[in-house]
Amino acid sequence: MSLKVTIIGGGSSYTPEIIEGFMNRYPSFPVTEIVLVDIEKGHNKLKIVTSLAKRMIQKSGLPIKLSYTLDRRKALENADFVATQIRVGGLDAREKDERISLSHGVIGQETNGAGGIFKALRTIPVMLDIAQDIHEICPNAWMINFTNPAGIVTEALLKYSPHKKVIGVCNIPFNMKNSVAEMMDCNVNDVEIEFIGMNHFVFGRSVYIQGEDRTAAVLEKMLQQNVDYSPANIVSIGWSETFIHALKMLPNPYHQYYFQKEETLEKDLTAFKENGTRSEVVKQVEMDLFEKYKDENLDVKPEELEKRGGAYYSDAACNLMDSIHNNKGDVQTVNTMNNGAIPDLPTNSVIEVNAVITKDGPKAIASGHLPLNIKGITIQMKAFEELVIEAAISGDYLKAYEAMVMNPLVQNEKKAKILLDELLEAHKDYLPQFQK
Amino acid sequence: MSLKVTIIGGGSSYTPEIIEGFMNRYPSFPVTEIVLVDIEKGHNKLKIVTSLAKRMIQKSGLPIKLSYTLDRRKALENADFVATQIRVGGLDAREKDERISLSHGVIGQETNGAGGIFKALRTIPVMLDIAQDIHEICPNAWMINFTNPAGIVTEALLKYSPHKKVIGVCNIPFNMKNSVAEMMDCNVNDVEIEFIGMNHFVFGRSVYIQGEDRTAAVLEKMLQQNVDYSPANIVSIGWSETFIHALKMLPNPYHQYYFQKEETLEKDLTAFKENGTRSEVVKQVEMDLFEKYKDENLDVKPEELEKRGGAYYSDAACNLMDSIHNNKGDVQTVNTMNNGAIPDLPTNSVIEVNAVITKDGPKAIASGHLPLNIKGITIQMKAFEELVIEAAISGDYLKAYEAMVMNPLVQNEKKAKILLDELLEAHKDYLPQFQK
Amino acid sequence: MSLKVTIIGGGSSYTPEIIEGFMNRYPSFPVTEIVLVDIEKGHNKLKIVTSLAKRMIQKSGLPIKLSYTLDRRKALENADFVATQIRVGGLDAREKDERISLSHGVIGQETNGAGGIFKALRTIPVMLDIAQDIHEICPNAWMINFTNPAGIVTEALLKYSPHKKVIGVCNIPFNMKNSVAEMMDCNVNDVEIEFIGMNHFVFGRSVYIQGEDRTAAVLEKMLQQNVDYSPANIVSIGWSETFIHALKMLPNPYHQYYFQKEETLEKDLTAFKENGTRSEVVKQVEMDLFEKYKDENLDVKPEELEKRGGAYYSDAACNLMDSIHNNKGDVQTVNTMNNGAIPDLPTNSVIEVNAVITKDGPKAIASGHLPLNIKGITIQMKAFEELVIEAAISGDYLKAYEAMVMNPLVQNEKKAKILLDELLEAHKDYLPQFQK
Amino acid sequence: MSLKVTIIGGGSSYTPEIIEGFMNRYPSFPVTEIVLVDIEKGHNKLKIVTSLAKRMIQKSGLPIKLSYTLDRRKALENADFVATQIRVGGLDAREKDERISLSHGVIGQETNGAGGIFKALRTIPVMLDIAQDIHEICPNAWMINFTNPAGIVTEALLKYSPHKKVIGVCNIPFNMKNSVAEMMDCNVNDVEIEFIGMNHFVFGRSVYIQGEDRTAAVLEKMLQQNVDYSPANIVSIGWSETFIHALKMLPNPYHQYYFQKEETLEKDLTAFKENGTRSEVVKQVEMDLFEKYKDENLDVKPEELEKRGGAYYSDAACNLMDSIHNNKGDVQTVNTMNNGAIPDLPTNSVIEVNAVITKDGPKAIASGHLPLNIKGITIQMKAFEELVIEAAISGDYLKAYEAMVMNPLVQNEKKAKILLDELLEAHKDYLPQFQK
Repeated sequence: MSLKVTIIGGGSSYTPEIIEGFMNRYPSFPVTEIVLVDIEKGHNKLKIVTSLAKRMIQKSGLPIKLSYTLDRRKALENADFVATQIRVGGLDAREKDERISLSHGVIGQETNGAGGIFKALRTIPVMLDIAQDIHEICPNAWMINFTNPAGIVTEALLKYSPHKKVIGVCNIPFNMKNSVAEMMDCNVNDVEIEFIGMNHFVFGRSVYIQGEDRTAAVLEKMLQQNVDYSPANIVSIGWSETFIHALKMLPNPYHQYYFQKEETLEKDLTAFKENGTRSEVVKQVEMDLFEKYKDENLDVKPEELEKRGGAYYSDAACNLMDSIHNNKGDVQTVNTMNNGAIPDLPTNSVIEVNAVITKDGPKAIASGHLPLNIKGITIQMKAFEELVIEAAISGDYLKAYEAMVMNPLVQNEKKAKILLDELLEAHKDYLPQFQK
Repeated sequence: MSLKVTIIGGGSSYTPEIIEGFMNRYPSFPVTEIVLVDIEKGHNKLKIVTSLAKRMIQKSGLPIKLSYTLDRRKALENADFVATQIRVGGLDAREKDERISLSHGVIGQETNGAGGIFKALRTIPVMLDIAQDIHEICPNAWMINFTNPAGIVTEALLKYSPHKKVIGVCNIPFNMKNSVAEMMDCNVNDVEIEFIGMNHFVFGRSVYIQGEDRTAAVLEKMLQQNVDYSPANIVSIGWSETFIHALKMLPNPYHQYYFQKEETLEKDLTAFKENGTRSEVVKQVEMDLFEKYKDENLDVKPEELEKRGGAYYSDAACNLMDSIHNNKGDVQTVNTMNNGAIPDLPTNSVIEVNAVITKDGPKAIASGHLPLNIKGITIQMKAFEELVIEAAISGDYLKAYEAMVMNPLVQNEKKAKILLDELLEAHKDYLPQFQK
Repeated sequence: MSLKVTIIGGGSSYTPEIIEGFMNRYPSFPVTEIVLVDIEKGHNKLKIVTSLAKRMIQKSGLPIKLSYTLDRRKALENADFVATQIRVGGLDAREKDERISLSHGVIGQETNGAGGIFKALRTIPVMLDIAQDIHEICPNAWMINFTNPAGIVTEALLKYSPHKKVIGVCNIPFNMKNSVAEMMDCNVNDVEIEFIGMNHFVFGRSVYIQGEDRTAAVLEKMLQQNVDYSPANIVSIGWSETFIHALKMLPNPYHQYYFQKEETLEKDLTAFKENGTRSEVVKQVEMDLFEKYKDENLDVKPEELEKRGGAYYSDAACNLMDSIHNNKGDVQTVNTMNNGAIPDLPTNSVIEVNAVITKDGPKAIASGHLPLNIKGITIQMKAFEELVIEAAISGDYLKAYEAMVMNPLVQNEKKAKILLDELLEAHKDYLPQFQK
Repeated sequence: MSLKVTIIGGGSSYTPEIIEGFMNRYPSFPVTEIVLVDIEKGHNKLKIVTSLAKRMIQKSGLPIKLSYTLDRRKALENADFVATQIRVGGLDAREKDERISLSHGVIGQETNGAGGIFKALRTIPVMLDIAQDIHEICPNAWMINFTNPAGIVTEALLKYSPHKKVIGVCNIPFNMKNSVAEMMDCNVNDVEIEFIGMNHFVFGRSVYIQGEDRTAAVLEKMLQQNVDYSPANIVSIGWSETFIHALKMLPNPYHQYYFQKEETLEKDLTAFKENGTRSEVVKQVEMDLFEKYKDENLDVKPEELEKRGGAYYSDAACNLMDSIHNNKGDVQTVNTMNNGAIPDLPTNSVIEVNAVITKDGPKAIASGHLPLNIKGITIQMKAFEELVIEAAISGDYLKAYEAMVMNPLVQNEKKAKILLDELLEAHKDYLPQFQK
């Protein structure tokens, strides 16, 4: 029986990780074919990654067929799963997001503030095209989306694409569980966290260890050890005791941008002056990685990869495919339809939530009402996400402005326009919907 | 390590079934002590059941300590689980419900119509007392409630008792899965049904076999084979093709009372004339069972027990305790807080729903909005349930009248009063809250 | 300045009432032109009514131009208000609704039960056509809809027509206020009733006299005097003390069909045997009226008209037009968008509600949550109405079946099909959407 | 017939305005007795104001009895209306709010940011005491609350006081209508604005002139004329074209603090450096006013009063009392229960909304869903308000911290604590609930 996975954005430096993920899960998830797809601009990288991936598979001795192509539609034929890990405009676009935002004293992080808005505006139309292809060519395939902003992109697809088998994944919940396991000195499989909220704005409401609610203990530990579970790509400042005691939940690292705005901005600006933008740092990291990948003796995933912000993304994705394929019925944290799980958010919006995973996809577990202390800001962020999606779909200038001015990291009527105009100009090649 | 289960209403004829359930699950759920509790009036039955249960355990050779007592508070000491399977007023009260209702041409079934209302009014105050005792004596124990109307009783407890570790169970979802397995000739473990609604008013929205959505096929099979999955205690008429095609879901057997009201009433009336009420039939069955139980050579659960309406109740309960104890994280169908799982029903109401079961109890899986074709009637039934609970708690005559007149099987302003007055008088010994 | 009113269904026997209404309000609502429109089949009646109306106006000496036409689109040119008072299929169709329903022991009343469903199925498509014409020809005109079932028709228009200036009116709230004024021996203008619910399923939650809440006193008076405010066209049985004390609100006469189902059915059946259906009675009344109308000496509205069920409809409509025209900002009871006024019903559904009337149309006054005692049944009725609308729009057999089986006056899976099939056949000429 | 009004905080410099208001409305609202109440600390001012008020009344020749007292409970006897216009801690407390906030670079405006939070924390307990007195002594009296933050205070009273006849009023909606009338060169009585939101966070969604929707024209006019309708007490910066075009609604002046945060802060800081805090400015204004009031020849309201931020407050209040007294049924903008009028906000929260005013109080007019562009921020502000109320009631440090950190003008975990601690210390005499 065939089991084919197509990876769109296959030329990414992360690809060796997902290849390793498939090899590790081969007994339960016996993938027979992997196709790596990319665009012309990424042709060279695609070839390098493909060669490394082939060496990795060869070493394992597993009967997995791997190939690459620039023909996306061809690559989708008979696919059972499609993983999407694209970056529209590449790191150059990210650099512009960061540079322009920071030049106006606004956070331009990849998925937050002005940067996150423009990443969404560039990405959503391309992802809708991909989903349309999937719907036509392999309508039974599950689309597993890693592309950021993962929650917003997934909501846009579930609202506007005919293809409804779409799930968003992120490594943050995975990282948070790992951090708790380290703090509490236990096995990560014994840790369960009840997540509530949206991608990159999710809270860990309760933490269970072997089924016991240990939330309070974990929070104290976190404060004592000043634990840092920020991924490599974002700042890490640490939380005050009062904030954690009032919150009574685990924040995620991206919450620093919202509740330590001034401090994170300062850190970002300092880093910017010293090392340039994060994207420039990443460009160098990527260049080094591809140098390594070219080495014909390399036949394993290089360790350096784990130091990237996106580490474990592929673990999350592989686990998900495994559970769907095997109708496991286990609980994983994904980006999927709310359906009432958080009654305070629109039923038809996408949340990051624990869900039971079966062959029929994820089903969110109901959480009841949001705690009052995060209710307002969470609903505000969701409404902001809706504005971004409407802007991305319509290409309407005023809608994009609304998204910008209502983002809590901007929320200034004049700065919003300056940022918007400058970013629209900088990215115009990737924003055809705004050129109408 | 001790693992103690207290069974309130232990003198029930169903007890051998739950004892067998514990023995079967001993490897994963190693119960060390079982205490059967009952009231003075059931002393004799309690002794008979205890003896049989002891013989059953002895035969198995398992190290389970079993005893009985009339002292409920003593029995609760150190309990880990408390199963409640009481019948306030016994079968005599049920007979009155049925006789009086039928004498006025109204369905008096145990959990539906006028009968269901009065069973709730009698039961809720007693269950609140039990929950209060649990809260004081063994606050960490989970209360597993079989007592009907299971959904209404569970909601009353979760709303008005300080003890919040309460779960309601019913065998109907279990029966429906069994019936599907038979129809589709597959293993019951391969069947998943997405249940939406409330206890005895639940629909099977989607049926999955090995993870594939086979709802349409199952519905056709059901129509072709005229499959009957009614439990022994209620009528069975069968559904028309048009109804099933319009419904697009699996009804549960109790829906006959609502959508075949005239026919079920006629059947009940005919049966009443021929054999008396269902409770009279049951009384005879019980008498026969207890005769059997007395036989000192009997050391297994007698087969006759499986022919009762409540068969498999204990399976549902034992599976639940097993999953809680072992923090399994599997999916079971229980009566628990909605929390948004069905956004059309109050967040703080109890629904019958698939839930993930861990040591922290059940967490409902979100379903999204009710299909329009059952939205109205489902919301009405839930509002009716709220009226019953308010009446049971307050002892307010007019609230009881509201519940009666708004029940779709009564819904007549004059008949509601006649029934109410006659039933209040008949049951006055068990309705102290109405005597104020 | 011109002020033109077009009356669709102008050949109705009720027309003299609305003409009188315009003449009475001439000082504040100086209508300059009235056009009566009807279909070919009603040509003769239209001519008779037009002649009478002309004599009435001539007598008044008011400068109102009145004419008739069969050309609907022409009649709409430059209209400021369009009143719709049509009856698709005429009294013959109503007779079939009643005869067929009653022959199966089901209430077939014009706006309730099986009769109401079929009246909606016949009427909605025609009304959508009319609204489409208005939208094209006189887009600024307000459409004032008298056509029953007025609430359902208005909701269908507001959901599916591009013309959004639509308001439904009914005389029941008006009658209820009149009855209260009589009971309490006060001026009807001093009576305010807070209405909650839907057309023909509305409750009077609070009754104010000169601003004082007198609800309890009014309810007692009603019980003492056994007050009857049923319109001429429906049964009148009277309410029991217990029902009224539990309800704590004013029911409307149509509630008898729901809470006195058996009794009203019996009355309807008896009347049917003695006098034929209500529609046959009405046919005779109409024939007599038109005989009168032909009398060239008649130049006033004949008194007999006030004995019809629809009396005062036109008062409600004329007051509404007057307030819109003059931007009065007073409070009237209309059928309009909920918008949250009753949070338990869909925001985008139509309710019968007190609303502030300005040039911009009606704005519903918020009521807060429905009292628990009517919450379930009210939501159920609204969901039923949605099913009817979906059936009327789609022409889908199963959707029509769903509406039939979920109507509380039918709610029997077999009877629903029998009624549906027989009525679809009987009305097939007026149900083109079901012939696809 | 007597008609008594009690004014709590009667020693306020605004009192002459409300006295004038009563005199102007005497024909329709014939007040017979006015009692001015204040606390010991305000004794001197109270005497001065009382003398002036007496001279004003004497000049008018109206038979209004006016007196003052420090005995609040006595003053409430037989009151029909109670106006509350207190300032707990006086202008000294306001000065601390402003100074401390600004010293940490945070907006400390009286009703926004850290200042608004502390004004609420000080005021709510005192207002609950007053409401309790009213409930005991004159339970039929309407409490008309001017005290800021008027919306939050009114919500706290409606949630936690047994006295439910409470309405909040503000002059901002009144000012906005006046500004529109000026801009559009029309009579203010011809202007209607549909307000949505909360006190000091309200938007004008639609503007009608003589019933015609002129919103777009008004917005253009506002941009062209750079119209300033800010009250005297707050900054005025003006809005950009893009913001207004995207908003498509009238903002209120306080929105500057949220969407021009940096600019308003800078203006406030500059003003602070030049003139000290706003409260210091006001202190001087007050001193000058009281000097004037002392003049025994003064027998009219001095013009200077109209230059204060709260001008027209008393107009709003007098109109409200007039409509209640006369059961007018007109539409006014007040702070009252939502009840579904804005379905996105809690049903039991207080909004600033157009409402029909009768003897039974205000009934909000339903608006339907919030436009998406303001949905998020409006819901967040309401959740913030709930946090403030919970903190004020409980005296819980962490709840107060939650309110502080979730306020969009603070939203920094560290700054929140610094502000909170410093303000709690500064105001400890007026925050007994936090001393437990």
